[in-house]
Amino acid sequence: MRAEGSAVDRDRLGAITEFLLFVDRLKTVERKGVVPGVNRRETVAEHCWHMALAALLLEREIGFAVDLGRVLSLVLVHDLVEIEAGDTYAYDAAGVAGQAEREEAAALRLFGMLPADLGAELDAMWREFEAGVTPEARLAKACDRLQGFMQNVAAEGVVWKENRIDRARTAIRTDYPRGVDPAIAAVIEILYAKADAGRMWPEPGEE
Amino acid sequence: MRAEGSAVDRDRLGAITEFLLFVDRLKTVERKGVVPGVNRRETVAEHCWHMALAALLLEREIGFAVDLGRVLSLVLVHDLVEIEAGDTYAYDAAGVAGQAEREEAAALRLFGMLPADLGAELDAMWREFEAGVTPEARLAKACDRLQGFMQNVAAEGVVWKENRIDRARTAIRTDYPRGVDPAIAAVIEILYAKADAGRMWPEPGEE
Repeated sequence: MRAEGSAVDRDRLGAITEFLLFVDRLKTVERKGVVPGVNRRETVAEHCWHMALAALLLEREIGFAVDLGRVLSLVLVHDLVEIEAGDTYAYDAAGVAGQAEREEAAALRLFGMLPADLGAELDAMWREFEAGVTPEARLAKACDRLQGFMQNVAAEGVVWKENRIDRARTAIRTDYPRGVDPAIAAVIEILYAKADAGRMWPEPGEE
Repeated sequence: MRAEGSAVDRDRLGAITEFLLFVDRLKTVERKGVVPGVNRRETVAEHCWHMALAALLLEREIGFAVDLGRVLSLVLVHDLVEIEAGDTYAYDAAGVAGQAEREEAAALRLFGMLPADLGAELDAMWREFEAGVTPEARLAKACDRLQGFMQNVAAEGVVWKENRIDRARTAIRTDYPRGVDPAIAAVIEILYAKADAGRMWPEPGEE
């Protein structure tokens, strides 16, 4: 909240309004994941909402304490740089190679739109998420990986099949959340069991 | 977090996983608002993400204290019932009339998918948001109205024009957030000024 007795700062609120209008573009950035039932890819904005809900539900199940407000803040902010840098497919080695530089440049421009103190706070949230060191960042990052994996299960493996991603290769996305907490590892196991039962992997002959 | 020393409960996590897979459908429920730059309506999942980000940024600007984790939780959960009940256009009087009953039935089914304690918690969040009494619910609800209004400005008034919603009628959506805090009232004023300057209202002759 603003300091007691201090007036509303219209310039400041103007910059926040412009920022909120600008980040609307995250609804136009598409991920690889498919939304079942509609003929389109999931948007990054949708991913962030789903991931935040996962964090909210799993916060009570994990074996370490977190500040939920901080976890959810990290989730909401972590992909804003993709407005300029685009979404990088996790299995695209060449794309992943240049990702950090593209996102660094995007963060500078994007958070620079906000009043300096607020921009610095969002920049710090983005970096905290990326570093994955604090308990809050570990839960948020685990939910990022978990949501992507879950989306492929929701879409019955269509994206794994189209990109020839076999079961073994998905470990680069599931090892991290498994390591964060046994409760999250259990959710990953449940999702693998669904993927196996539903034959969601590419046929071996297609590799 | 789970009680210290207690084991991971796979049945419980199975129910949470099914719930998270089910609520994916919120990405298929469309609102009236248009996403500029792509030829489609905003989804409810996108609305929730955008609204949560608004709450995160405005929390520091308002004149009353809130628990940010609670505010963001209310935002993430508040529209889940729309998976079954659908989105009701705020200016559709007939739709608004049956909305509460439809949503009540949806909440019973939806939150009933979760372990009882967790289902009760989400149900309580939804009711807290709807009642709009706590400081957290007031901020969340103000951001709900604010985001919808902002989306119409982002889309340059196309939805107001197509539904013949003139400036005066939008008061039923903006009076509430204006009353919650002067900082939010200032954002609403900035958005009205943009709408006026951009001639985003239907022509008087078309009324």
